Amino acid sequence: MSDKVYIFDTTLRDGEQVPGCQLNTEEKIQIAKAQEELGVDIIEAGFPISSPGDFNSVVEISKAVTNPIVCGLTRAVEKDIDVAAEALKYAKRPRIHTGIGASDIHIQHKLRSTRDEILERGVRAVKHAKKYVEDVEFYAEDAGRADLEYLARMVEAVIAAGATVVNIPDTTGFNLPWVFGEKIKFLKENVKNIDNAIISVHCHNDLGLATANSIAGVENGARQIEVTMNGIGERAGNTSLEEVVMIMNCHKAMNVHTDIATERIYPMSKLVERLMRMPVQPNKAIVGSNAFSHSSGIHQDGFLKNKENYEIIDPSVVGADTSKIILTARSGRHALKHRMERIGYIYGQEDLNDVYQQFLNMADERKQIEDADLKELAEAFDKVRSASV
Amino acid sequence: MSDKVYIFDTTLRDGEQVPGCQLNTEEKIQIAKAQEELGVDIIEAGFPISSPGDFNSVVEISKAVTNPIVCGLTRAVEKDIDVAAEALKYAKRPRIHTGIGASDIHIQHKLRSTRDEILERGVRAVKHAKKYVEDVEFYAEDAGRADLEYLARMVEAVIAAGATVVNIPDTTGFNLPWVFGEKIKFLKENVKNIDNAIISVHCHNDLGLATANSIAGVENGARQIEVTMNGIGERAGNTSLEEVVMIMNCHKAMNVHTDIATERIYPMSKLVERLMRMPVQPNKAIVGSNAFSHSSGIHQDGFLKNKENYEIIDPSVVGADTSKIILTARSGRHALKHRMERIGYIYGQEDLNDVYQQFLNMADERKQIEDADLKELAEAFDKVRSASV
Repeated sequence: MSDKVYIFDTTLRDGEQVPGCQLNTEEKIQIAKAQEELGVDIIEAGFPISSPGDFNSVVEISKAVTNPIVCGLTRAVEKDIDVAAEALKYAKRPRIHTGIGASDIHIQHKLRSTRDEILERGVRAVKHAKKYVEDVEFYAEDAGRADLEYLARMVEAVIAAGATVVNIPDTTGFNLPWVFGEKIKFLKENVKNIDNAIISVHCHNDLGLATANSIAGVENGARQIEVTMNGIGERAGNTSLEEVVMIMNCHKAMNVHTDIATERIYPMSKLVERLMRMPVQPNKAIVGSNAFSHSSGIHQDGFLKNKENYEIIDPSVVGADTSKIILTARSGRHALKHRMERIGYIYGQEDLNDVYQQFLNMADERKQIEDADLKELAEAFDKVRSASV
Repeated sequence: MSDKVYIFDTTLRDGEQVPGCQLNTEEKIQIAKAQEELGVDIIEAGFPISSPGDFNSVVEISKAVTNPIVCGLTRAVEKDIDVAAEALKYAKRPRIHTGIGASDIHIQHKLRSTRDEILERGVRAVKHAKKYVEDVEFYAEDAGRADLEYLARMVEAVIAAGATVVNIPDTTGFNLPWVFGEKIKFLKENVKNIDNAIISVHCHNDLGLATANSIAGVENGARQIEVTMNGIGERAGNTSLEEVVMIMNCHKAMNVHTDIATERIYPMSKLVERLMRMPVQPNKAIVGSNAFSHSSGIHQDGFLKNKENYEIIDPSVVGADTSKIILTARSGRHALKHRMERIGYIYGQEDLNDVYQQFLNMADERKQIEDADLKELAEAFDKVRSASV
């Protein structure tokens, strides 16, 4: 049996804090529901103390989803934790994510404190969070640049205090994959209570290495990866969900799996791109518009002889099937749903029925329905729906 | 002394073959000159047999640049090599890049041949190219999925035939970094004449691992990396120049260096984005519009206390200095040049003088000159210049 790797999706927290990406609560709920359908294990829904809007979103997302764990971020501060617990009270499976800087740079220049004092604050935060919820994740911020012996001591102490997950972030995106992997290995081998918690990796992409670092973490014992859809996030962004999931899907020899419904990846990518106004470049791995297109003559020839010559992922596996279905008034709900998802509109059964009726009117009039027509339809429907909320 | 890693820029070949990215010869020359200024070691200028336009571009680029090696791509076919040699006749430092599929998938399904026959064709191609030029690079296509013993035999044979560089491509972007690194190490340790050639790595980004794989190659003995600006290229693209260069720049412990003028990276990125119509996403590492912007409150606070808390690269090192210089009629040529480059217009001395005169007229009239004004100026100047060519 292969090990499960948990997918912790922070699109709504680390992704959403980027300028221009802000969502209202209704949009966040739409994304959270799509995350549930995609099969993410943990939804990081927000940072409740940061604003009333964020607090409210965590409340509403907690009500809206059933299967995923819903997680709220805090600093290692009692008040933050109290507020997060309050925001999570409707969650079926709540998690508090607390933590503090672990590198000397952060301890000295940001926190202006000492290693011992910071370790003690981390432990106190975990104990405080445990009063509210069983599931407490601890982040050791800037772990990627922390002294390794100190980091191991910190991890051991927070696990002893009750942390169920320990998050080892490469906050600045500085690490090389083999170096980051060695750090995870060191923790796995030197923290004596490490098997009482799941090791999580949270990598940033400043040098283009977030994906490789996350996978290096898994190869060395991490069993949770923190990701965003399309790799959005602070600066150069976070680890891309689509990349790490498809690496583990393609590389069976890694002997790990996720519970992501891969065919939901492409629709999710389009939904996030549209709602968060964060364009995906054509050459983005897995979800870019060119990701599966073969252009040069040599490649096209080779591809036509046998697609394995140049293709390692069948586009349909990630829901990016490029075959054209021509939509007309004879098309059914399923074909409409499929095409709408490919342009970033995901509908539940009830909305689909309503949109379908309007689609039939449009198709009667215009005969063949193209993506531009669908977009017009979806935007008109959005307006009607928000007017009626 | 640290080892030099050669930067082989294939933006004008592997990048340019992507639909929508096609350039005319004049635009290619503009990019090639900027590549020379950026300090790339090798410009892959095209695939001369593929079309008369490509042939002509290789001729004109050969005439236009002095320092970089100019390289033309061929299949392992005599006619290809003859035509490439002809196209390169004005190059001060010509290189022919020839090769053939090395994986069993390519040998059986694309080339419909046998391992022995393919090895022999590769050797013949190198020998034929050597009749024209001293510098011959051999690519073992799909090396990432090739049988390693066979690949080693092939590499040894082409080096014996005179190849000066052996290119080990991960054509489908399938490899994990530590696995790809092991392959380079195997070649380094098992090919007895390996020190007579430079090992090159050419990685694709289908799983988001091109950068990590290239760096893994360097860690194990490769001394040339094949890249494109902004990571453009077939499907999910090639290794990004900006990422591998800045990794080697930041990680002094790797004990390697490149001759890239890092402060030319950002202007080059904007030039390629503009001329090739291939947008860079905001969260692209190093060159994205958000790459150096700190958005969350926690990060901003930490950043203001000490920028090392969240920043590993000073934006000015890659020419992405975000400080605003207000341009007026009192501004000089240097300030104008700097701002023009930040929006993707790179001018030589003569053009700069002409543009500067027009800038002064505009500044007299409009007082403060913003990016939108500069764009208007540059576009008007482009039109005048192309009309006069």
